Amino acid sequence: MTEILPSYIRDAWWTPGDDATAVDVRDASTGEVVTRVSTEGLDLAAALEYARTTGQASLGDLTFHQRAVLLKQMALALTERKDELYALSSRTGATKADSWVDIDGGIGVLFAYSGKGRREMPNAKVFVDGDVEQLSKDGSFLGRHIYTRLPGVAVQINAFNFPVWGSLEKFAPAFLAGVPTVVKPATPTGYLSEAFVRILVESGLLPAGSLQLVSGSVPTLFDNLRLGDLVAFTGSASTAERLRSHDAVQTGGVRFTSETDSINASVLGTDAVAGTPEFDAYVKQLVAEMTTKAGQKCTAIRRAIVPTASVDAVIDAVRTRIEERVVLGDPRAEGVTMGPLASLDQRDEVLRQVRRLQEAGGEVVVGSTDAPEVRLADGSTAATDEGAFVSPVLLRFADADAAALHEVEAFGPVASIVGYSAVAEAADLVSRGGGSLVTSVATHDPEVAVALATGIAAYNGRMLFLDRDDARTSTGHGSPLPNLVHGGPGRAGGGEELGGIRAVLHHMQRTAVQGSPEMLTALTGVWHAGAGARAEGEHPFRKSLAELRIGDQIVSASRTVSLEDIETFANFTGDTFYAHMDEEAAAANPFFPGRVAHGYLLVSWAAGLFVDAAPGPVLANYGLENLRFVTPVSPGDAIRVELTAKQISPRETDEYGEVRWDAVLKNQDDELVATYDVLTLVAKTREAQLA
Amino acid sequence: MTEILPSYIRDAWWTPGDDATAVDVRDASTGEVVTRVSTEGLDLAAALEYARTTGQASLGDLTFHQRAVLLKQMALALTERKDELYALSSRTGATKADSWVDIDGGIGVLFAYSGKGRREMPNAKVFVDGDVEQLSKDGSFLGRHIYTRLPGVAVQINAFNFPVWGSLEKFAPAFLAGVPTVVKPATPTGYLSEAFVRILVESGLLPAGSLQLVSGSVPTLFDNLRLGDLVAFTGSASTAERLRSHDAVQTGGVRFTSETDSINASVLGTDAVAGTPEFDAYVKQLVAEMTTKAGQKCTAIRRAIVPTASVDAVIDAVRTRIEERVVLGDPRAEGVTMGPLASLDQRDEVLRQVRRLQEAGGEVVVGSTDAPEVRLADGSTAATDEGAFVSPVLLRFADADAAALHEVEAFGPVASIVGYSAVAEAADLVSRGGGSLVTSVATHDPEVAVALATGIAAYNGRMLFLDRDDARTSTGHGSPLPNLVHGGPGRAGGGEELGGIRAVLHHMQRTAVQGSPEMLTALTGVWHAGAGARAEGEHPFRKSLAELRIGDQIVSASRTVSLEDIETFANFTGDTFYAHMDEEAAAANPFFPGRVAHGYLLVSWAAGLFVDAAPGPVLANYGLENLRFVTPVSPGDAIRVELTAKQISPRETDEYGEVRWDAVLKNQDDELVATYDVLTLVAKTREAQLA
Repeated sequence: MTEILPSYIRDAWWTPGDDATAVDVRDASTGEVVTRVSTEGLDLAAALEYARTTGQASLGDLTFHQRAVLLKQMALALTERKDELYALSSRTGATKADSWVDIDGGIGVLFAYSGKGRREMPNAKVFVDGDVEQLSKDGSFLGRHIYTRLPGVAVQINAFNFPVWGSLEKFAPAFLAGVPTVVKPATPTGYLSEAFVRILVESGLLPAGSLQLVSGSVPTLFDNLRLGDLVAFTGSASTAERLRSHDAVQTGGVRFTSETDSINASVLGTDAVAGTPEFDAYVKQLVAEMTTKAGQKCTAIRRAIVPTASVDAVIDAVRTRIEERVVLGDPRAEGVTMGPLASLDQRDEVLRQVRRLQEAGGEVVVGSTDAPEVRLADGSTAATDEGAFVSPVLLRFADADAAALHEVEAFGPVASIVGYSAVAEAADLVSRGGGSLVTSVATHDPEVAVALATGIAAYNGRMLFLDRDDARTSTGHGSPLPNLVHGGPGRAGGGEELGGIRAVLHHMQRTAVQGSPEMLTALTGVWHAGAGARAEGEHPFRKSLAELRIGDQIVSASRTVSLEDIETFANFTGDTFYAHMDEEAAAANPFFPGRVAHGYLLVSWAAGLFVDAAPGPVLANYGLENLRFVTPVSPGDAIRVELTAKQISPRETDEYGEVRWDAVLKNQDDELVATYDVLTLVAKTREAQLA
Repeated sequence: MTEILPSYIRDAWWTPGDDATAVDVRDASTGEVVTRVSTEGLDLAAALEYARTTGQASLGDLTFHQRAVLLKQMALALTERKDELYALSSRTGATKADSWVDIDGGIGVLFAYSGKGRREMPNAKVFVDGDVEQLSKDGSFLGRHIYTRLPGVAVQINAFNFPVWGSLEKFAPAFLAGVPTVVKPATPTGYLSEAFVRILVESGLLPAGSLQLVSGSVPTLFDNLRLGDLVAFTGSASTAERLRSHDAVQTGGVRFTSETDSINASVLGTDAVAGTPEFDAYVKQLVAEMTTKAGQKCTAIRRAIVPTASVDAVIDAVRTRIEERVVLGDPRAEGVTMGPLASLDQRDEVLRQVRRLQEAGGEVVVGSTDAPEVRLADGSTAATDEGAFVSPVLLRFADADAAALHEVEAFGPVASIVGYSAVAEAADLVSRGGGSLVTSVATHDPEVAVALATGIAAYNGRMLFLDRDDARTSTGHGSPLPNLVHGGPGRAGGGEELGGIRAVLHHMQRTAVQGSPEMLTALTGVWHAGAGARAEGEHPFRKSLAELRIGDQIVSASRTVSLEDIETFANFTGDTFYAHMDEEAAAANPFFPGRVAHGYLLVSWAAGLFVDAAPGPVLANYGLENLRFVTPVSPGDAIRVELTAKQISPRETDEYGEVRWDAVLKNQDDELVATYDVLTLVAKTREAQLA
């Protein structure tokens, strides 16, 4: 008998006893049994508690950057063994191109989060959000916002269509946030999820308790959740509704986010008539969305909304393209470009929904619901009832008001087409989907784009604008990207995943913090003006990262600016702006008392005032941020600079790191002249400084 | 008979017929009938639809800045007539100090959002979130995130304790976002909300349909809501639970956010023993939280968590302070510092909850539940059953594990005190509140602060750290501020209000947008690199805001850097860093090929290359952002600069505005040398340029 698919619980593989009741999982093309699935006897409560204790502890030992480095190593471990995953993936009905989206797409999410985590988060455990808020005039009481990780477990319930990507796109941000994961894949394709978890486990990269796998259904899951836990669900709207209504979510404080398939639209702009590049790009994209993953994508186009005059042309072009390009069959057969649905159940469900669309007025104008002839693994062609094959189907609706058009989803290679007369009508039709993951628009006219976007943006998690300029490079209507949010309002589930660091923060709690500068410095790891600073002793530029502490400071000597200095600078740089050169004109300017020093002169002098010239740990000034000129500097004024180490971020994989310095320029009357942050690269040790 | 309190619906005052069934609302101190409340016959569906059409249209005509200016004008209109509000407020049981929190606090929120809206949002209708994402190597396909307003109505359901502040803190961010409001105050104090709405209506400042008032209960409210609408609820956890479970929220896509009173804690640090400034500040704050608004604040301290050795000292100090400072009575009587609860129902409910706490082991150690002697309006002292008076009560729990201590809320002048031994135990006790709006900590020891924060941050919407440095300037445990988030996880409702612009964005939908640079420029109003630019014609610095367009550009001549230039600059500025001065040492640095030009030299030269020297519309360069040095510049290299108008923000109340310029420095080989944004002030017209 086929073995039961293992779960990975409390850092060990687990399978029920042989006598457990199990569900057969079958090959999508041939109907062969691939594996059996059961969680009979699995101690879910213990698994969750293990995550909350061991998982939280091991991830809590790591900084964002350390977790990010692990994500990259995991991506490399999966890349090395991805052939194993591709081989299994074909059994789910996925073609090589489909598998690429799932497997390489999933690995890509790990790489992306590894990069984003190191570039956009500090090498720390707390993430600071937004600017400091002055809560008292004297600066003794400040406010700031921080994100800290949720104290529980991230339970990730995935859909069957992307067993690798769907898991990894949830796992990566949770891991980066420091929240342990329990992943529950969908039964029909869970064996592919098990395979990638196995590779990760064998890589030895997973911190204890950071990832557990439940292979099979767990009806009591929500009874075991509590405040601090989070559920990220992908699947049908009806299941999302049932899960969301559980007490754990309604009153128990468990965060629940859902991403459900939606009735996504693709709009052909009024300008994009047949013969334009936008028309061609529109048709190409529509066919791709109907056939990739056999249309089993929550982001796929379900409604083609097209100027009435172009409906026939689009239908003809879609039919031609499908006839010329699409070869339906077993993905293991040479030349097959579209595979079966994931299971016979799915096939039957899709055909049922197509009938609903037909009953509501949809006329099949491309394809058919008859059992298609398909190419089998041996290269022969036949109609088969063992595989879950459905041919691409386009339905035409004469009545744009038909409710089913906007509400019924056939989760397969199925789309509807409907005409519109004016842009406002197209926008209205899009929004009748009740909230979508994505809407795409083919137009080369910015006015059409703006008019549509204004009407539909709030109903969509993502909008893609396709035209001759980006048709070649577009990543496509149906492709969520790690750096853009994935999710949408209403019917789309109301959640938000991905979007780079945004998804990491969804695994954390934002908390306002009020206190003295000293306390905020301690709590954020970022120096706050007013907190203690050490200006004595060695110049801070002579300190390596190992020696430097936030609050280390240099207060410079004072330097007086003369009119001659201003003229010298003007002549040297060519910046002869009248505010520096013409007393009368400068005085007439509302912001200047008369001729003033160049802002760039002040910043350049400040560098001269705080620099330590000899080779040392400070390797380079790589940038500057948030420069504001506050008080103009007139000839005769003197400036000095206070430079304080504000934030220290050693790199995990280099012998140096970033140091952000708080720079404050003041004049002889202690008035604020300018403020900014100086960004430097500093060696980790004095030995490394010239490595 | 007392008149029925009017509602303000579809830009007109509305009252039910005289025969309507109405609820009497009574003076909190005397029991006199103040008004009657009824919504019998109110056409709620029409009101909501009016908001979605007329309200959306009138607010949609305005930019963020225009709405922000209106908020300030509303704040001024309310300030002018605030005496009327104070007079009514005393009838709710509020002392002058309580009324200040509600009325001036509410007006302060309008001022704060007016300022934040203009400083932190663009003068536009779309809010851009985060950086541009490169989605193709050649730059032809980009991603960005935008926020657009929700297309529906913001329904704001408020609690009885802050009839002005509670309404305005929800209204201000909704208004700024461009979403019309329907406000539903609580019945016991709704007459004060009606009064401020009346002032706003009479000010003539409200755009049509932007604010409607429902004075009374509306049981069918949720049946009339749909995708695009938002409900912001403040009140009890049980009501929040009931509302949240409505289909409109569960499956209809209506956003629901709740802020519910929680069992907030205040922790005395282990270092803050009797005699320290932190101990004194702790006791002072605890008494203030028990007595302000007679403890009717969802943010009030319910649990004093104190080192076991300090429990007695805290109890004694609290008792002494209450005896010395607190005068209970009719707020209209001279010298009264604490008023009654808002209604007799509230009084009875509070006493009921105190009994529950007693039954769970709480021992009353300060105050009593007997009917207190109070000062009446005429100055006499008596025990009265007409007013809703309760004296301040502190209960001591010997058993920190008593569930009621962490779960039962007496929404009045009532707190419990309990001892702890170690910081980890204190953190655990805080988190047993199941999610709180705020926890305060009195400590002067950053290590204690960090240890506690690490344990409790994720259970709190806000944390306040009190010590000798900020005790004088602290705004207090119980005071939500417009610039800090207000809300909290779990028991606190799971929502987030205020927090400056964060609350505005909660009224908007975040959408990822993909497209060509040209399209993203059109959709965001911000120029994107790669979009068309106009470098011909007049220098863009000669154009006023009326003439300037994003994409207007200057491409400078090229200028070669010599070793002599570098030395001249080093000598002039004093910046003799070795990378500029010492060939051998510079070449040993990992980032430089040898001696290189100063970054500040390049930026200063760039200004000389793009400047237009004569007086003109550009008034000042007030700052610079996001400067990154990419490729070092060696002697013999030549640089040039491309400067492009990126974002134009005319001010509503000045004759100038901000222009952000995209600056790109390249070398002779077209390599990127540096990128940054130049910030300038530019006159609106040529006539205004020297005003």
